[in-house]
Amino acid sequence: MITASICTIGDEILIGQITDTNSAMISRELGKAGIRVREMISVGDERDEIARAIAGCLEHDGIVIVTGGLGPTKDDVTKGVLYDITGSTGYVRDSRQTEIIHRILSSRGLDVLDINLRQADVPDRCDVIPNRLGTAPVMVARFPDTAFGRKAVLYSLPGVPFEAEGAMPYVLEDIRKGFCLSEIHHRTIMTYGIAESALSDLIAEWEERLPSCVRLAYLPDPLKGVSLRMSVYGVPDAEKIFEEQTAKLRSLLGDNIYSCSGESLPEVTGRLLRSNGWTVSTAESCTGGLIASLLTSVPGSSAYFLGSVVSYASSVKENILGVPKSVINTHGAVSPECAAAMAEGVRRITDSDFSVATTGNAGPSASEGKPVGQVWVGISSRKETRTMEFHYHNDRKRNIERFAASALDALRRVILSGTEA
Amino acid sequence: MITASICTIGDEILIGQITDTNSAMISRELGKAGIRVREMISVGDERDEIARAIAGCLEHDGIVIVTGGLGPTKDDVTKGVLYDITGSTGYVRDSRQTEIIHRILSSRGLDVLDINLRQADVPDRCDVIPNRLGTAPVMVARFPDTAFGRKAVLYSLPGVPFEAEGAMPYVLEDIRKGFCLSEIHHRTIMTYGIAESALSDLIAEWEERLPSCVRLAYLPDPLKGVSLRMSVYGVPDAEKIFEEQTAKLRSLLGDNIYSCSGESLPEVTGRLLRSNGWTVSTAESCTGGLIASLLTSVPGSSAYFLGSVVSYASSVKENILGVPKSVINTHGAVSPECAAAMAEGVRRITDSDFSVATTGNAGPSASEGKPVGQVWVGISSRKETRTMEFHYHNDRKRNIERFAASALDALRRVILSGTEA
Repeated sequence: MITASICTIGDEILIGQITDTNSAMISRELGKAGIRVREMISVGDERDEIARAIAGCLEHDGIVIVTGGLGPTKDDVTKGVLYDITGSTGYVRDSRQTEIIHRILSSRGLDVLDINLRQADVPDRCDVIPNRLGTAPVMVARFPDTAFGRKAVLYSLPGVPFEAEGAMPYVLEDIRKGFCLSEIHHRTIMTYGIAESALSDLIAEWEERLPSCVRLAYLPDPLKGVSLRMSVYGVPDAEKIFEEQTAKLRSLLGDNIYSCSGESLPEVTGRLLRSNGWTVSTAESCTGGLIASLLTSVPGSSAYFLGSVVSYASSVKENILGVPKSVINTHGAVSPECAAAMAEGVRRITDSDFSVATTGNAGPSASEGKPVGQVWVGISSRKETRTMEFHYHNDRKRNIERFAASALDALRRVILSGTEA
Repeated sequence: MITASICTIGDEILIGQITDTNSAMISRELGKAGIRVREMISVGDERDEIARAIAGCLEHDGIVIVTGGLGPTKDDVTKGVLYDITGSTGYVRDSRQTEIIHRILSSRGLDVLDINLRQADVPDRCDVIPNRLGTAPVMVARFPDTAFGRKAVLYSLPGVPFEAEGAMPYVLEDIRKGFCLSEIHHRTIMTYGIAESALSDLIAEWEERLPSCVRLAYLPDPLKGVSLRMSVYGVPDAEKIFEEQTAKLRSLLGDNIYSCSGESLPEVTGRLLRSNGWTVSTAESCTGGLIASLLTSVPGSSAYFLGSVVSYASSVKENILGVPKSVINTHGAVSPECAAAMAEGVRRITDSDFSVATTGNAGPSASEGKPVGQVWVGISSRKETRTMEFHYHNDRKRNIERFAASALDALRRVILSGTEA
């Protein structure tokens, strides 16, 4: 089986100023093509460290993907390392990339500086895959079988995440031409509402009886819940195995499963609304607009999402959402009565079929006698309003995420339970 | 100088299902303590790969931080590797962690299962740092100087990000007891509104004259703008150098600099509002609640943030914000007139001192004749309303982020320009 390694370059990663998201994106894309990533490594902008890391990767893997170290203001250390390991004898300015640089900068109304054009200069023993989304091209170093006792190809991608992502289809096309790829399959079952250890208990018997070719991983996440990932290597009928095992999981977990296709909670909830021709609005206190932000992160969400009122101040709850002052005075803002009034209020003023409301205390400290982590969710339809309480015990950021996801999940369950708008 | 490496364990990372954020957090914490991270490496849940990666780290670095591979449903492969490399002869159940497991699970109303208690079992040659936030303890393996020709300590942290973060202060306390730490300093100057290459052009002369002990890095990010990070190693008067260089940058970049202390754009904008006793509201179309979500991510934001209306549907713009139908019919929703009417509308109904409005097209495709990436921002105070246009050319997610950050930055500049509420 062909393995790959991913080498990320940049002091900014090593000092923790930015989080490397490229490696995850690249490994997802390689995985889909049946290439197993054996290792990811991050090193700083030091020539020696880069050369050592790349040599280590080439030693173990036929495919090495390098990202970063190519920006207009970088020292081009990566380029220098590629120059050396390919035995290049000079730099060549790539005409296709030069054109792209002119096009991109002029569309932004910027002058084309020499520093920009130099990005199209490439070691003469490297191939080039033009980068349509940015100024630094992808460089490809191909090594003779004699170098590492087998085929080895190195791809150097720009570090800017959306440029690296845009380059991957072309990199994979190149890989497919040069390598005979084997099969690897993943299926992820996404659940919400059960803690990891309770889930593990629920499905322990099923897990024990899994065929030996299936590997299972538990992946907890505040916005996604606990995902169960099944992986199958080198088996021809992976789809059939997934179908069988997914059916068994469904009978064990029921509506706790919200997706088997990779759809996110906002996508699933949006699809349920859309397929019924229903609309939704949100009234958010402690979630501060995150539910609206999640719903609108989905392209096409304007078909079902009408809008939101983020009612952080009590005056906004009263004046815009029409929450009676007496509700807040008697029960407090963090109460089922307030959640219900907020949900009903936003549904009325937006004329939506459903609405979701949140009011709680995300932290950092207890407030109005309400502990950190407590939230009330209101779900209102044209026929009825329900409220439910959730408790978490995390930091502010994490609580806000869990509150928002719990509210979306509550809406999903209400719709699945057969409630009509 | 003492170096460290960070080894992250988990198939879920290697297949790209989750992004490793622990490494960035850990390296930030180590950096603050003057420890340089030489390398980060991620490997799967295979015992051999973990053992090989850890051995490689210990070979190069005195401090090795391992995360992951410890969850209740993991195969405890990390624990097995620690057992082997420390030459342990059995497992010991840690009483402090056992207590914590009971406390955490009962506070969530969950039964304490045997699978949970087994997490407190630790190889007998490892020290334990209790994990107050989760069920898996931190394990510490100390190696005699003879093993690697110098002091070497390995810390194994749980993979759950907030648990790993919560453990770091105790890990650093332990490191400080055992190592004599040298000095490393970073100062980050955060700018918004100038592209990376234009910024590099503006400060080229300054950059050339930087003292040789200062390293500079450009860090572009859609939500943060371009940050300039200066790093100084092993110099006693780092603060003085930073002050001098920051003053020079300020004279070159003026208000394009929004922070020199690590404060984010929402924090800086919030502080400006708070110190003047002003309040703010937002009216968001294309940003879908993200500006409100960013503002409320800051603890204490209720002092100045009143609320938001996310007006995705035209009906919400008209009925709640009071945008005249004629404005939308004549100029379209993506227009300066609509942005101004939205900003004035939300300021009126929330009675805030300032308001921010966004209306644009984030993508994926052109809509109502408006190209992807176009946004109009409205900033309204009690005295006047201004509108401004921004153009980006990225994907939907990135455009939404840039729109929201541009709007926050526009508010910041309006306040700095001396506009009174």
